[in-house]
Amino acid sequence: MSLSTEIRVAYAEMESIFHHILLKHSFSKDKAALCARIFADNSLDGVYTHGVNRFSRFVQMVVEKHVLPDQEPTKAAGFGGMEQWNGNLGPGPSNAIFCTERAIQLADDSGIACVALANTNHWMRGGTYGWKAAKEGYVFICWTNTIANMPAWGAKEARLGNNPIILAVPHDNEAIVLDMAISQFSYGGMEKFAMQQKALPVPGGYDETGQITSDPQKVLSTKQSLPIGYWKGSGLSLLLDLLATILSGGKSTFQITEQKTESAVSQIFIAVKLSSLYNSSAINNIINSIIADYHTAAKQSASNEILYPGERVLQARKRNSENGIPVNTKVWDEILAL
Amino acid sequence: MSLSTEIRVAYAEMESIFHHILLKHSFSKDKAALCARIFADNSLDGVYTHGVNRFSRFVQMVVEKHVLPDQEPTKAAGFGGMEQWNGNLGPGPSNAIFCTERAIQLADDSGIACVALANTNHWMRGGTYGWKAAKEGYVFICWTNTIANMPAWGAKEARLGNNPIILAVPHDNEAIVLDMAISQFSYGGMEKFAMQQKALPVPGGYDETGQITSDPQKVLSTKQSLPIGYWKGSGLSLLLDLLATILSGGKSTFQITEQKTESAVSQIFIAVKLSSLYNSSAINNIINSIIADYHTAAKQSASNEILYPGERVLQARKRNSENGIPVNTKVWDEILAL
Repeated sequence: MSLSTEIRVAYAEMESIFHHILLKHSFSKDKAALCARIFADNSLDGVYTHGVNRFSRFVQMVVEKHVLPDQEPTKAAGFGGMEQWNGNLGPGPSNAIFCTERAIQLADDSGIACVALANTNHWMRGGTYGWKAAKEGYVFICWTNTIANMPAWGAKEARLGNNPIILAVPHDNEAIVLDMAISQFSYGGMEKFAMQQKALPVPGGYDETGQITSDPQKVLSTKQSLPIGYWKGSGLSLLLDLLATILSGGKSTFQITEQKTESAVSQIFIAVKLSSLYNSSAINNIINSIIADYHTAAKQSASNEILYPGERVLQARKRNSENGIPVNTKVWDEILAL
Repeated sequence: MSLSTEIRVAYAEMESIFHHILLKHSFSKDKAALCARIFADNSLDGVYTHGVNRFSRFVQMVVEKHVLPDQEPTKAAGFGGMEQWNGNLGPGPSNAIFCTERAIQLADDSGIACVALANTNHWMRGGTYGWKAAKEGYVFICWTNTIANMPAWGAKEARLGNNPIILAVPHDNEAIVLDMAISQFSYGGMEKFAMQQKALPVPGGYDETGQITSDPQKVLSTKQSLPIGYWKGSGLSLLLDLLATILSGGKSTFQITEQKTESAVSQIFIAVKLSSLYNSSAINNIINSIIADYHTAAKQSASNEILYPGERVLQARKRNSENGIPVNTKVWDEILAL
């Protein structure tokens, strides 16, 4: 196996190339621009798995007609600050931006609002929507269900999704954004440890005898990954799927799994308007006092960093803005050939 | 040390005794009845730690004037379906029931509603409010912050709360209710393992050298418990505190910790009205299909049970309704002397 090398691609160039490719695949000008920007932003922010490294697969989903670029969300039902929308299998990122903006608009009228989206596609990085809404001054909570990829506590067959959830609050013209899947590790993350022949830092799943293990290779072979907190994350994943399904009227993890391809997922977008409760400097003072206390705790060891969720994203954004976005040449060549 | 024995107390007797004691401690007739019922219900449901085993401590908090039985919540601010209330240091359970009912009432008008409660006291079992709202047909999410009892990821000083969160949906005239703290184990839970000289089933905290350990005695001595999912639960706990604090305008975990006594906590109650979207049999069909799939997964081993959150509560409720509620004689004698 020859090693591929890494190059640096400037943000503007990456965005422009993504845009151009999406125009070739029946995206409208606006939707191509929006989706290109989201893939480039995710890469800039260091979330390559849901940015540049996933772009080819996204285009493939369009080619295979799982993602329908000409479709827009349509309203299915609504009552006050609660609305159900149908994503009509349109692109996940543009559908999710639409629903984020709709939740914000409804929250402006209702204080709090929930947009529940059925029949949409993978939104790539859920944090995208949290960063956007929190930077605009809203408390934001969103989550998605997924195809089954994790056994429930006590089970060995994967019937639960890793159902990423995002919680975001404004902070210093940026945001504090928790963006986490309910699995302890992603399969992609475990593959990296396996390639380096390293143990996972904490247990990640089961081996073939049903024992909990930190050996990534064993979890990759049983496909029995662990939820965060063992029985606790198992329950949380189930509830996130139940809520996404009944609030949206869309498909549950088990119905997505029956399709074989991860499409037609269900998502929830909840926004709370803060400006009706505070001025923005008051919010910032409260949050800064909490973060100041958080940052001054004694460390477990000198090498530890105590970071708030999203702090590493800001560091990556700064680094990649200055130096360009690191891209594997093989990944980049595949994109350029699209 | 002489071993205390266990007796069985009938629900009605327990409720009546709690009621009588609360009347002696300046609770109004209605508030005494409500709080007595909640403590008895929590015990009936098998959550003894937040029922009968905590009743004496609750009364002690009243005696010490941390819990003020004559105080009622007052509205601080509101906009649409989002309201801030001040708990005025009243009893946690009656304040939380009030806010649950208020969130339901607001959701009837707004589809979704959030009541954020500042300056309240420990609500005992958070599940109480999830069971109530879900049985009435609502999707319900609530959480509370707490005094600091858990280090952030990378830290050894406890600056985070275990901030229990509850997610609930209606199910077959009952409910599916996830009620979980963000710590992997409670200190009370670890004490039980330590007394039996058993290892924790999964890692629960740090030993004195900063290594992650499953030895409950070591975690009890360092007071460095682990969040669920290690770095993930650490982030989740911080975000739950940030949201509780800014939405309620109340105290953050670090401010509660400065007081030394856990009082004046902040809580969030979010209700979504389902009856504006579905009839109840449609909801039940969707949820039953998800739970049916969940229950039929192959088990990790023959001795495993695959239960949904709340299923064990229903089993305990049935058992304790039939046999009486198991109570340690020492605990019961202490209550009878109040």
